[in-house]
Amino acid sequence: MSLVVVGSVAYDGVETPHGKIARMLGGAATYISLAASYFTEARLVGIVGDDFAREDEDLLASRGIDLDGLERVPGKTFFWAGKYTDDMNDRVTLTTDLNVFADFHPKLPESYRSSPYLLLGNIQPALQRDVRAQMNGLRFAGGDTMNFWIKDFREELLATIREWDFLLINDSEARMLSGQQNLRKAAAAILDMGPHTVVIKRGEFGAMLFRRDSYFIVPGYLLEDVFDPTGAGDCFAGGFSGYLAEQGFDLEGDHISRGALSRAVIYGSVMGSFCCERFGVERFRTLTRSDIDARFDEFRKFTSF
Amino acid sequence: MSLVVVGSVAYDGVETPHGKIARMLGGAATYISLAASYFTEARLVGIVGDDFAREDEDLLASRGIDLDGLERVPGKTFFWAGKYTDDMNDRVTLTTDLNVFADFHPKLPESYRSSPYLLLGNIQPALQRDVRAQMNGLRFAGGDTMNFWIKDFREELLATIREWDFLLINDSEARMLSGQQNLRKAAAAILDMGPHTVVIKRGEFGAMLFRRDSYFIVPGYLLEDVFDPTGAGDCFAGGFSGYLAEQGFDLEGDHISRGALSRAVIYGSVMGSFCCERFGVERFRTLTRSDIDARFDEFRKFTSF
Repeated sequence: MSLVVVGSVAYDGVETPHGKIARMLGGAATYISLAASYFTEARLVGIVGDDFAREDEDLLASRGIDLDGLERVPGKTFFWAGKYTDDMNDRVTLTTDLNVFADFHPKLPESYRSSPYLLLGNIQPALQRDVRAQMNGLRFAGGDTMNFWIKDFREELLATIREWDFLLINDSEARMLSGQQNLRKAAAAILDMGPHTVVIKRGEFGAMLFRRDSYFIVPGYLLEDVFDPTGAGDCFAGGFSGYLAEQGFDLEGDHISRGALSRAVIYGSVMGSFCCERFGVERFRTLTRSDIDARFDEFRKFTSF
Repeated sequence: MSLVVVGSVAYDGVETPHGKIARMLGGAATYISLAASYFTEARLVGIVGDDFAREDEDLLASRGIDLDGLERVPGKTFFWAGKYTDDMNDRVTLTTDLNVFADFHPKLPESYRSSPYLLLGNIQPALQRDVRAQMNGLRFAGGDTMNFWIKDFREELLATIREWDFLLINDSEARMLSGQQNLRKAAAAILDMGPHTVVIKRGEFGAMLFRRDSYFIVPGYLLEDVFDPTGAGDCFAGGFSGYLAEQGFDLEGDHISRGALSRAVIYGSVMGSFCCERFGVERFRTLTRSDIDARFDEFRKFTSF
């Protein structure tokens, strides 16, 4: 079943110990849609300027991503540049030019509104909330956020995630949102804020999924070379929600098993790991579903006892 | 089958965000033996001064630990004091008084020499090597080391671990020993140094076991409160080697299955997690084998998919 994906479509400049790319396709909605496209029909909602290249649009279209919701306006596409530390666990933002993204007010095409699945990439919480309100017949909705909204837009963020089925968040942001240093306590506090499912991403250390009555933890995949971690968290989100949309699960109530959610976390981890193997979205030019399923099996092999 | 454990027996002063204890039983051999004692007969080799308290000896004896190899000499027992950071991931050493430990030259009682299992806690590599040479009929031997020996006693350390079946090491030390930042590459480099099994401990993030043809990763157990992480790595070592000794596995060649090694890593993780639940060795006063097996089952539950 189709998944609506909302977020930034951008150009990124990235420097890692493996090299430097001055300008390449990026953005949360780009990564989420690409990852989700291996599982389900992704319907992208975003905004780009008139500098957005045909070849980048073609890459998205080649993965069957619905681009009816990709608004094109005069001006420049959002540009972000950053540099990673030697161990790749930290990055410094060098440039953030919002450009046309500054006036992003997502309007869903009529054809998107009845999609049962919604993944809201990291944008202003009020916009996330507004998108959700445009949809009817949602079976599950959730998304991502970041430190900036947690710190300076807390009430707006709380009102937004109160309506979500699931929240994807990284470990330091889970601590910031909950005020709890311990991740088990942090997750419990976030479950009290509305979502019945919380996924905490830990970068190279993997991910954890919490519901009221159970939790699941997976270690990160051990890549021999991490070329570029940009987008890995968004690819996790795309794999996680894409898999659930593919299966047609209903996340509300008890209609989804812990097993299915755990497999969704594994597919998220698989997509995040592939993302890091090349710069930017490069890996998605050659990646196949059978590569993905092979790595899923590898996760089972190195974690089972 | 019996396991010989060599290392420090000490008094520790520890401060964590949960409190401060000025002096309590500690030391690597203490923690290793206590953890291993739930699985097999641990035979301790260590040295203490004439201040070593009867009640501390009684605790070890109550767990069935063989103390024939615990040497008592005039003077003071090794004393270490440290303070943990708020997130418990780092600690600062405040005091290291080697005292009688400075002249520790482990001599194995005749009754220990035919034990098939040997775990060498973190002491000077030449002493570790000397202990191994005192034993006959070993089925598996290995141990721990630390940054100090890696940095300043590298050749001595390499000659020592060349004879080991397994090395237990934490992530930053694995990187230092191998010169590789990536842990998969670090493990491969260490496997070239002699041991056929390498276990990399990652603190709260769990542990990884590498052999030439396979690897296994487990996330850390999510405690709600970490009171005191002192000794957790040693308890891991005790659980890991204690379980293998209990099963009577032969680690040389292909006589041990990946499944058994993985279960040993889980038992190590279980023992490390219990250790953190109270200050020092307190948790071992009440811990039972059925508590341990229940947590083992919990690991299976939160990691399987």
